[in-house]
Amino acid sequence: MIVVMKDNASKNDIEKVVKRIEELGYKTHISRGTEITLIGIIGELNREELIDSLGAYPGIERLVPIQEPYKLAGKSFNDSRSRIKIGEDVVIGGKEVVMMAGPCAVESEQQIINTARAVKKAGAKILRGGAFKPRTSPYSFQGLHEKGLKYLKKAAEETGLKVITEVMDPRDVELVARYADIFQIGARNMQNFFLLKEVGKTDKPVMLKRGMNATYKEFLMAAEYIMSEGNHDVILCERGIRTFETYTRNTLDLVSVPVLNKLSHLPVVIDPSHGTGQWDLVGPAARGAVAIGADGLIIEVHPEPINALSDGQQSLKFDKFEELVDDLKKIARAIGRDL
Amino acid sequence: MIVVMKDNASKNDIEKVVKRIEELGYKTHISRGTEITLIGIIGELNREELIDSLGAYPGIERLVPIQEPYKLAGKSFNDSRSRIKIGEDVVIGGKEVVMMAGPCAVESEQQIINTARAVKKAGAKILRGGAFKPRTSPYSFQGLHEKGLKYLKKAAEETGLKVITEVMDPRDVELVARYADIFQIGARNMQNFFLLKEVGKTDKPVMLKRGMNATYKEFLMAAEYIMSEGNHDVILCERGIRTFETYTRNTLDLVSVPVLNKLSHLPVVIDPSHGTGQWDLVGPAARGAVAIGADGLIIEVHPEPINALSDGQQSLKFDKFEELVDDLKKIARAIGRDL
Amino acid sequence: MIVVMKDNASKNDIEKVVKRIEELGYKTHISRGTEITLIGIIGELNREELIDSLGAYPGIERLVPIQEPYKLAGKSFNDSRSRIKIGEDVVIGGKEVVMMAGPCAVESEQQIINTARAVKKAGAKILRGGAFKPRTSPYSFQGLHEKGLKYLKKAAEETGLKVITEVMDPRDVELVARYADIFQIGARNMQNFFLLKEVGKTDKPVMLKRGMNATYKEFLMAAEYIMSEGNHDVILCERGIRTFETYTRNTLDLVSVPVLNKLSHLPVVIDPSHGTGQWDLVGPAARGAVAIGADGLIIEVHPEPINALSDGQQSLKFDKFEELVDDLKKIARAIGRDL
Amino acid sequence: MIVVMKDNASKNDIEKVVKRIEELGYKTHISRGTEITLIGIIGELNREELIDSLGAYPGIERLVPIQEPYKLAGKSFNDSRSRIKIGEDVVIGGKEVVMMAGPCAVESEQQIINTARAVKKAGAKILRGGAFKPRTSPYSFQGLHEKGLKYLKKAAEETGLKVITEVMDPRDVELVARYADIFQIGARNMQNFFLLKEVGKTDKPVMLKRGMNATYKEFLMAAEYIMSEGNHDVILCERGIRTFETYTRNTLDLVSVPVLNKLSHLPVVIDPSHGTGQWDLVGPAARGAVAIGADGLIIEVHPEPINALSDGQQSLKFDKFEELVDDLKKIARAIGRDL
Repeated sequence: MIVVMKDNASKNDIEKVVKRIEELGYKTHISRGTEITLIGIIGELNREELIDSLGAYPGIERLVPIQEPYKLAGKSFNDSRSRIKIGEDVVIGGKEVVMMAGPCAVESEQQIINTARAVKKAGAKILRGGAFKPRTSPYSFQGLHEKGLKYLKKAAEETGLKVITEVMDPRDVELVARYADIFQIGARNMQNFFLLKEVGKTDKPVMLKRGMNATYKEFLMAAEYIMSEGNHDVILCERGIRTFETYTRNTLDLVSVPVLNKLSHLPVVIDPSHGTGQWDLVGPAARGAVAIGADGLIIEVHPEPINALSDGQQSLKFDKFEELVDDLKKIARAIGRDL
Repeated sequence: MIVVMKDNASKNDIEKVVKRIEELGYKTHISRGTEITLIGIIGELNREELIDSLGAYPGIERLVPIQEPYKLAGKSFNDSRSRIKIGEDVVIGGKEVVMMAGPCAVESEQQIINTARAVKKAGAKILRGGAFKPRTSPYSFQGLHEKGLKYLKKAAEETGLKVITEVMDPRDVELVARYADIFQIGARNMQNFFLLKEVGKTDKPVMLKRGMNATYKEFLMAAEYIMSEGNHDVILCERGIRTFETYTRNTLDLVSVPVLNKLSHLPVVIDPSHGTGQWDLVGPAARGAVAIGADGLIIEVHPEPINALSDGQQSLKFDKFEELVDDLKKIARAIGRDL
Repeated sequence: MIVVMKDNASKNDIEKVVKRIEELGYKTHISRGTEITLIGIIGELNREELIDSLGAYPGIERLVPIQEPYKLAGKSFNDSRSRIKIGEDVVIGGKEVVMMAGPCAVESEQQIINTARAVKKAGAKILRGGAFKPRTSPYSFQGLHEKGLKYLKKAAEETGLKVITEVMDPRDVELVARYADIFQIGARNMQNFFLLKEVGKTDKPVMLKRGMNATYKEFLMAAEYIMSEGNHDVILCERGIRTFETYTRNTLDLVSVPVLNKLSHLPVVIDPSHGTGQWDLVGPAARGAVAIGADGLIIEVHPEPINALSDGQQSLKFDKFEELVDDLKKIARAIGRDL
Repeated sequence: MIVVMKDNASKNDIEKVVKRIEELGYKTHISRGTEITLIGIIGELNREELIDSLGAYPGIERLVPIQEPYKLAGKSFNDSRSRIKIGEDVVIGGKEVVMMAGPCAVESEQQIINTARAVKKAGAKILRGGAFKPRTSPYSFQGLHEKGLKYLKKAAEETGLKVITEVMDPRDVELVARYADIFQIGARNMQNFFLLKEVGKTDKPVMLKRGMNATYKEFLMAAEYIMSEGNHDVILCERGIRTFETYTRNTLDLVSVPVLNKLSHLPVVIDPSHGTGQWDLVGPAARGAVAIGADGLIIEVHPEPINALSDGQQSLKFDKFEELVDDLKKIARAIGRDL
């Protein structure tokens, strides 16, 4: 961190700032230019504490952060890419692009088992399905809760798939852990810090979705919350951000994949279903996602989208999903990956 | 809700849609134009259910919502403005513009009691102060927890102020209720639906902050979550939204005040401290807020901003706050309100 | 400008950067920390040239600008506030809050003369009215062109008002100059650099509207384009920015007033009509604008909004405008200004 | 267009609206529900005129557009995809993904000829290079103007490439037409309507860049401006939009490709250089662009990015560009296209 003093800062202003920094336990390095004085702060930095502590000092023009504040999620912590194992056979972050698929919500035993069989046959490794649904309206279908988790687990066991499902309430972490192989944290909960800490105390992988208005850095700081509790198996998931454009449900930021690869060692999964909100855009977005380097895709698939209890308009039918996976295999091979 | 069919929709397409709507328990009203057919849906609507149910039907061009989905928070539920009583003497939503003030975080008994005295003297009615702090970084100061709540309560009792403080975890609602007169739900938790339901089950007023990327309608739907559990005492708080502009911490949407007054009967409070992030912008923003019709203001005040453990750069000193309240009184009188 | 070198930058990397900076005619000041080396750049900086020149050098972590690039528009150029005279009697940027009012488009001689009389009576000093209209669709009414300018001028002369009107094409600057007292540059043309230069060569004041997605700094850089050609009489106008919220036509950034006052000496005018897009929000927004410190307001007023050829939904009728001005006078007095 | 009346609209309100619509020359179709009355408007619609004309009527809840306002750019005008021929050999919008490459700005004869040879060898068909540069600062390098156009033309003739270059001022259209095979309209000028009309009067193809804050519909309406003057050879170019994320120069909206393909018959080109602003993100973004279905790519290539006069940080060196084209060929083949 560098403190840039205002050009009219007095000697006294500068001394006060230096004193305060040293009180906080850091060393300083002062560099006086003809017009401007810079104060370098040396030591194991707590950036937010520094900003809080220095923010109101007169004479300070601005604080310039130099190093990133996400120690565990950042590139410097782990130069090679993290490979996250789900059970014995599935690795996210390796050569294979991993397909996760299933309905938005678990609606019935029959629905989820049929979907599990279809997505397994098409090539998926992980079954998705919500038992707790975050809905904008309190009057909408909120999920089957534990019954839904049971159906999901049963469908997965029968087909040999792994299970990913969302947890929304810190009080439900233990319950969901009994059925899931991967916790999903939804976009609306990306900064639900108590929930992050709670899954951070478990030993199950966590797929963290990017908040609709979260910068890359805030996204990695949220991952850091989980990791700082001891659980390093975090998978990042881009699912679209909110912009001025309303034609699509969200604006899918595919370039987040190479950006997050520059900043972090964690694997990155793309959700083209929420990212676009329209089933006929899911295929093109998925093709772009594989080519740009995603480590996995999570796609909504439903036996009968027109009868779905939620997100029917963005769900693929079984045959469309199978065709799409075939297309994606060709693109994966073209860039030297498996699928 | 009106269903607009595509201009190439077949008779069969139309019949399928009508059948589905009627299966869901609604009546329909079909209007055939020369080019386009419209299907009106009649009945007590569950809008999200309808969108989910019809989203994937072929032949549908679009669904046009007519009525707003927030029944309790909306204007039609309560034509007059809600007046929310805090204890015997304070009313939010009446003729008086209510001042809430205090430090970002409770840091010590001395800090909060001194601040309470100063803001009381300046004219504030409600004392703010965080005991649980949502921080972007897991390594930052997270608040004093119950100890902070105790100091806050004590300072309020001594000065005759009421207490507003944030609750972040549904498991803490009971604890916080023992010390607070008003629950605050932070912007990051605006769609933490389990938390909303939990405070909705209590009988204490709730100040709900608008999410950084929440539309007015989503904001009111979040209020609806609280109200649908039985607690109708909801206060809306605009605290800045996220836009492309990064010079200020957020973009404070002052026009939200008259907009929310059009859409809802709930009172609206402005937070110019988070809304701007810079202490020297807090005064102008507060002046604008009173003139545009806010029912209250919540302002960060700290005995020594330069030593604050958080948000020092946006906190006012005691004397600046006192001067500001004097200015605001003049504006309130100019528009026919008290303060 | 400070160059922050990467922590793994080699001595050779550093030397190359220093060499390049010195080739560009600047002096350097090197500060070597334990981990990071900083290179200060000293001299009359051309910031964009520097970013262009250094952007691709290996070993550079980032460039940190210290001083603002808008020399003429910035605070350091002129410590006191600019007062822009329009003819003998009107000053924008002084104690008086100046009202500009009139229809979106000049539609007929009768319409503009009636409006001129009404707004004059209510207290406006400047008459607005478009003769060239920027319309999203090529099939919409595009204005009366020179005929409109003539009607406008005539109405102004009869009532003693000054004229503000938009110029969109550099080829029309001379024509418009014959009829207008103030050029208006619309939001869509804020970075139409050839147009900016063209009005910069004249000696008439220019009101520059902020682009829908322009940061404060880009806004001031656009003002700089005009000023760098010799015309220093620039008035800044905030008219709403584009955000995710679509309920209002734009999001009116009222806090831009104190921000622009911090960064620049130029006066700031608010346009609550485009800023909200709804006539019943114009009044509250205008009240907020005066209280927050705007130097003027530009408001759409029309004899019969329901028959307006453009922007009827955001136009005020004569009596509503008169009432509004009365309200604004009270607020202006409350903050120590005239209107 | 459907007019939805408010639920409390009187019979008189409804009659007034119907009368006004019929005065404008349309027929109406009224549909009275139990609560709400709808008025369908029938005829060749001028949507913006209608919104303007009806916007201020009391009793109207909202106007619901049914058909798109871009007649010529829209899908209904031309069901098959447009194929735009550049000279004899190059087609944009066909099976081949067309590569456009070159420096941001033409800096010297040597620079552009070397670049032309290198990009030709790698597989590009079209040479890009700016002679008029839109710069945020008036103090930055603004291009070589006609001298730059001459160098560009000469380099193209020697190598057999076609030329694309930006025109910024309507007064320069004729000049630029003498040297260019394709006009480029920059993002900042997407709504410079006089410029759009001017290139619409020529018979040269126009590549129109999406404005930083333009919705898909505004983008197509801008294309409509060009087409309505008679020139139907418009190529759409996505180059990144402005969002809250500032890590990348812009947020590249790759999903715009399938969206624009749904809405329009015009070809779509992606600019990964401006879209990301960082040379090491250009490759991944380009790979995603080809896979998602772009008809072409425009990429900044420079002999020595570190000495570039503009945009060096986002330019590729010759060898990197050649490697990238090889990668893109594999992806193009995997999705059944040529490159």
